[in-house]
Amino acid sequence: MAERVGFIGLGIMGKPMARNLLKAGYSLVVHNRSRGPVEELAKEGATPASSPREVAEQAEIVITMLPDSPEVRQVILGENGVIEGIRPGCIVVDMSTISPIVTKEIAAALAAKGVSMLDAPVSGGERGAIEGTLSIMVGGPKETFERVLPIFQVLGKNIVHIGENGAGQVTKACNQIVVAVTIQAVSEALVLAAKSGVDPAKVRQALLGGFAQSRILEVHGQRILERNFKPGFKARLHLKDLGIALATGKAVGVPLLTTSLVHEMLNALCAAGREEWDHSALVTLVEELSHTEVRAAAT
Amino acid sequence: MAERVGFIGLGIMGKPMARNLLKAGYSLVVHNRSRGPVEELAKEGATPASSPREVAEQAEIVITMLPDSPEVRQVILGENGVIEGIRPGCIVVDMSTISPIVTKEIAAALAAKGVSMLDAPVSGGERGAIEGTLSIMVGGPKETFERVLPIFQVLGKNIVHIGENGAGQVTKACNQIVVAVTIQAVSEALVLAAKSGVDPAKVRQALLGGFAQSRILEVHGQRILERNFKPGFKARLHLKDLGIALATGKAVGVPLLTTSLVHEMLNALCAAGREEWDHSALVTLVEELSHTEVRAAAT
Amino acid sequence: MAERVGFIGLGIMGKPMARNLLKAGYSLVVHNRSRGPVEELAKEGATPASSPREVAEQAEIVITMLPDSPEVRQVILGENGVIEGIRPGCIVVDMSTISPIVTKEIAAALAAKGVSMLDAPVSGGERGAIEGTLSIMVGGPKETFERVLPIFQVLGKNIVHIGENGAGQVTKACNQIVVAVTIQAVSEALVLAAKSGVDPAKVRQALLGGFAQSRILEVHGQRILERNFKPGFKARLHLKDLGIALATGKAVGVPLLTTSLVHEMLNALCAAGREEWDHSALVTLVEELSHTEVRAAAT
Amino acid sequence: MAERVGFIGLGIMGKPMARNLLKAGYSLVVHNRSRGPVEELAKEGATPASSPREVAEQAEIVITMLPDSPEVRQVILGENGVIEGIRPGCIVVDMSTISPIVTKEIAAALAAKGVSMLDAPVSGGERGAIEGTLSIMVGGPKETFERVLPIFQVLGKNIVHIGENGAGQVTKACNQIVVAVTIQAVSEALVLAAKSGVDPAKVRQALLGGFAQSRILEVHGQRILERNFKPGFKARLHLKDLGIALATGKAVGVPLLTTSLVHEMLNALCAAGREEWDHSALVTLVEELSHTEVRAAAT
Repeated sequence: MAERVGFIGLGIMGKPMARNLLKAGYSLVVHNRSRGPVEELAKEGATPASSPREVAEQAEIVITMLPDSPEVRQVILGENGVIEGIRPGCIVVDMSTISPIVTKEIAAALAAKGVSMLDAPVSGGERGAIEGTLSIMVGGPKETFERVLPIFQVLGKNIVHIGENGAGQVTKACNQIVVAVTIQAVSEALVLAAKSGVDPAKVRQALLGGFAQSRILEVHGQRILERNFKPGFKARLHLKDLGIALATGKAVGVPLLTTSLVHEMLNALCAAGREEWDHSALVTLVEELSHTEVRAAAT
Repeated sequence: MAERVGFIGLGIMGKPMARNLLKAGYSLVVHNRSRGPVEELAKEGATPASSPREVAEQAEIVITMLPDSPEVRQVILGENGVIEGIRPGCIVVDMSTISPIVTKEIAAALAAKGVSMLDAPVSGGERGAIEGTLSIMVGGPKETFERVLPIFQVLGKNIVHIGENGAGQVTKACNQIVVAVTIQAVSEALVLAAKSGVDPAKVRQALLGGFAQSRILEVHGQRILERNFKPGFKARLHLKDLGIALATGKAVGVPLLTTSLVHEMLNALCAAGREEWDHSALVTLVEELSHTEVRAAAT
Repeated sequence: MAERVGFIGLGIMGKPMARNLLKAGYSLVVHNRSRGPVEELAKEGATPASSPREVAEQAEIVITMLPDSPEVRQVILGENGVIEGIRPGCIVVDMSTISPIVTKEIAAALAAKGVSMLDAPVSGGERGAIEGTLSIMVGGPKETFERVLPIFQVLGKNIVHIGENGAGQVTKACNQIVVAVTIQAVSEALVLAAKSGVDPAKVRQALLGGFAQSRILEVHGQRILERNFKPGFKARLHLKDLGIALATGKAVGVPLLTTSLVHEMLNALCAAGREEWDHSALVTLVEELSHTEVRAAAT
Repeated sequence: MAERVGFIGLGIMGKPMARNLLKAGYSLVVHNRSRGPVEELAKEGATPASSPREVAEQAEIVITMLPDSPEVRQVILGENGVIEGIRPGCIVVDMSTISPIVTKEIAAALAAKGVSMLDAPVSGGERGAIEGTLSIMVGGPKETFERVLPIFQVLGKNIVHIGENGAGQVTKACNQIVVAVTIQAVSEALVLAAKSGVDPAKVRQALLGGFAQSRILEVHGQRILERNFKPGFKARLHLKDLGIALATGKAVGVPLLTTSLVHEMLNALCAAGREEWDHSALVTLVEELSHTEVRAAAT
C-alpha cells in the first residue's frame, strides 16, 4: 500500500472505482476534465491534479478510465499527457474499453520510456464499479499484472490475466459480442413468444432451466419484461464497443456475421433517439418490426 | 401410479425416458417403428404393442417422442394411429419438438374425440433424458398438466406450464433460437480471440464471470476448445428446430434477423457433411471463413 | 393452332394471359374457382368448364396459373383434378411460381399417365401479362418445350428453356432472390443518401451510369422516389417466393445469407400491414429504422 | 485549356487518367510517391514535381487520386502538402474514394485559404480510366463544377453534379453498396442454381430479360461462369469502400443490414487470401459454404 495511485477519468465508472481505492487506504492523485468530481473526491481525501502529466509526476501507478481510443491516446501520449510526467519503472493501467490496436501503440510508446502498461477493461457496469465486483480482463506483462493485482482486487472480483498487451481489450471485445448478440437473440425469442400469444415471462422462466440459461436472459430478459430501459449499459456505448470488435475482426481477418447485424441494430437504436437507453432496448426494434409489444401476462 | 402409460418413439431420447418411467414403477406399453428398442424395453418389463392404435387402446396417457411434425401427425392422426384407439378422458402428451401450428391442429382433432392433449417438448439432450433432468415446457389445459405432472417429474427437473396448446412448442422454439444464436456469438468471439493471438481458453474463463456468462459459454465453449463435436445435439436437428422457429415467426409476423442468419449457417454446416456433429460445430464455419482454428494455448 | 388449350386460374396474371391466347386465335377452355372471370372470358369466346378435370377432357395443352404449391397440387392431382381428365400424349404447363420440389412430384405423377409437363413460371408482372411481354423460364422435356413454344410466344418475349422439370422454378427462385436483395440494396443506398443530406434522385441518376445500373434502380428506384407503392408485385407474394428459394436452398444445401435477411424484412413488411404494397416498399422499413424518409429534392 | 493541371497519385487509375489529360492537350504537373510513373509521364510531356506542394505551386487545378482518407489528408493538408503551395482562386479536385466526413474537413480547410474543392470519385475501373469512360459523381460548389467540367469530360462519360462537398463521396458509397450486395445476390442465385442441377449460364440468360437485369448479372455473372477473378475491382478495395459506407451510415444513423453482411463476406474473402481477386469472387465463399462450384454446362 506504499505505492501512490493516480486516477484519470472520474465519470460514471471512474468515480466509484477511485472512491473504492480511497476507502481501501490508497493514497490517490486524481484528475478529470470537468472539475466537479475532482473536488468531490478531494473532500474524501484525494489529491487533485491539474493535468495527466501532474498525476503521473506524483504516482507510481496511473489508472485511466476514459470514453474511447482518442481520449486515451490524448491523455497518455498528448500534450501535458501522462508520458511527459511518468518515470521509468512506473506503470500505466488503462481500464477504458478501447481498440486493442491503439492499446498496442500506446504500450509501445510507454515501453520506450521504460514504463510498463496494462490494458484492463472491465465489465459489470456502474453497479459493479460501486460494489467493487467488476470483472477485469488484463493484458500486459505478467509481473506488472502481479504488481497491480492488489489494486484490481479492490475494484473487482473476477480478475483474469489473459496475455500480452491488447489481450485484455480483445477479451472485452469478445465479451461485448456475446452480450449484444445474446440480447438480440433473447429479444427475438421473447417477441416471437409474445406475438404467438404465449406469456414471455413464462418462456423466460422455462429457458432459465436449460442450455439457454444465461445472465442475459436473467437480467436483461427481466428488464425487457418490465420495460425498464434505464441504463444499465447505454446503447451508444455498446455500439462503440461492437465497432471496436468489428474493426478488430477486419484487422485480423475474422468475419463477424451476426455481430455486424447486431451492430447495425444498435445503430438503428441510436438513430431512434434511444442512445442513452439500456442496450436491452434492442427489443424495441424487434417489437416495432413486428408491430407488437412484449408484456408479461397479468398475474 | 394407477394410470397405464403408452410410449411411442424409442429413439435416442425416447428410450431412456421410457426406461425411467419403468424404473419409477409405471406400467408401460411401448411402440417403435423398428423392433429393437421395443424388445429391449420388453425385457425390462414393458408391454410391446404393434401399432400406435394398440398403444392407445391399452393406456390412459400416451406419450409420443418423434422426429418431426409429419411423424407426429401420422402416428396420432394417421391410419392405425393413436386417435383410432384412444378413449374419451384419456390424454396424449407429445414430447417431440414440432411446429406449434401442427400441434394446435392435432390438439383440435383429439379434442373432438374428448381427448385432451399436452405439447411438452424438452431440452437437455440425451444426458438429460438418461438422468431424468430434462427441462419440460408444457402447453395445454392446466388440469391435464396437473394430472400428468407426476410423470413429468420422473422425466425432468425444470417443468413449466406455459399456457394453451402450442405454448410448449413456441417456448421450445424460443429456446432453440437463444441457444443457436448464442453458440454463433460464442463462436465469433472465440475465433476473433484466437486469430488475434489471444488464448481463447482464457477469454472463455474471463467471460464466464460477467453478463456474458451462460451455459453455452460453459458447455459449448468448452467443446469448441476441445474440438469435441461428437453430439450432443446434432446440427441437422437444430436446423430443423430453427426452421420451426422461422415458420412460426412468418405465421405470426415476427422477423427473426439473427435467427435466420444462424439458420443459414446451420444449413451450411449440414451442407459441409457435418449434420451429425454437435451444433457447437458452427464454430468450424467461422474458422473456415477466417482461415484459422481455435485452439487453447498449450499449458 | 389446331391444338385446344385449357387455362385454369384466371387471376390478375391468368386472365390477361388467357385473353392474349384468345386474341391470337387459340380455342380456349377455361376454369377458375370464382365464376366472374370465367363468364367474362366466355363472352370473348372461351368455353367455360366446371372443373379442372373437365378442362383436361377437352384440351391437348392445359395451362395452370395459380397462387402456390398446394393449389397447383390440388388442381392437377386432387379430386376432379386435371390428372383425372387428361389423356396420354397431352401436356400440362404450370406457369405458377411454386416449389421446384413439388413441381418434380407433379411431373412424375403425370409422367406415370403418359402426360408430359413443363414448369414455366414467368416474370414481368400484370403489365407483362397484359402486353404479352413476360419472361418465361421453362423446365421439362425439350420436345415438349418446342411443341408449346408458339403458345409461349403469344404470352411473352424472353423465353428460355433451362433444363429438366423443376429447372424453370429454380430459375424463378433465382430471379426472385436477385430482385429482392437488389431492392433492399437500393433501399439502403437511397436512405443513406437521403439521411446524409444528398438528393436521392441525383444519386439514382448517377448510379444508372455504372455497374450498379439495373432495372431495379430504374423502375423500383423511381417508385421509391415517388413513394408509389401501389403494386406492381405484392410484398406477400415476394415473401412467398423467397420462402420457396430458402426451402430449395435448404433442400440442396446452399446457405442464402442475404436472401434470408431480406426474407425476414419482407416478413416485417407484411407484419406492418403492407402485404398488398409493392415490394419496393422494403424501403419503408429502412426508413423507419433510420427515422428518416427518402424524398427527391424539390426541383 | 489555358489552365495548368496538377495530378497527384499515378496508380492503376491515376496514370491512365493523367495520360488522357496529356493527350487532350492539357499542360500537366505530376507527382507520385514512387518515381516510376512520374518519369513515364514526363517522357510523354508532363512536368515532374517533387512534392504535392510543388504541384500546387505550378497548377490552377490540382487533382488527387489516392488510396484512402489518410493519404488524401496527408497529401492535401500534411507537411509539404497541396495546401502549402496552392493560391486563392485555385481548385482541388479529389477523385479518390474516401470518407465523406473527411472530405468535408478537407474542403473546410481549403476554403479557409480561399481554395474551392470538389469531391469527384469515379466508377468504371481501370478500363474506364484508360478509355475515358468513367462515371464521375461530383460534390462541391456548382460554379467550381462547371469550371472543371471540361476536364471531367476528358476523363469520363456519365458526369453528375450531385450537391455540396461530400455528396460525391456519399454517392460513391451508395454505388458500392448496390454493386457489392447485388454481386452477393447474384452469387447466391447462381450457386443455388448450380447445386440444384440447373445450368447457371441459362439462369443468367433468363434473368437478363426481366427486372433482375443488371450490369452485375451481365458482367460479373459472366466472370463467375468463367471463373475469371482477375481484377477488375479488387476485393480489398471494395471492402474499404463498404467500410466507408458503414461508417457514413453510423455517422448519420442509417442501419445497413445487408451491406454489413456483405462487408463481412468481403472481409472473409480477404482473409482467404483473395484480396487481389475481383470482387465477383464473393461467389467463391458461397460455393465453399455450399460445398459446390458454379460451372456452366458444357456446350
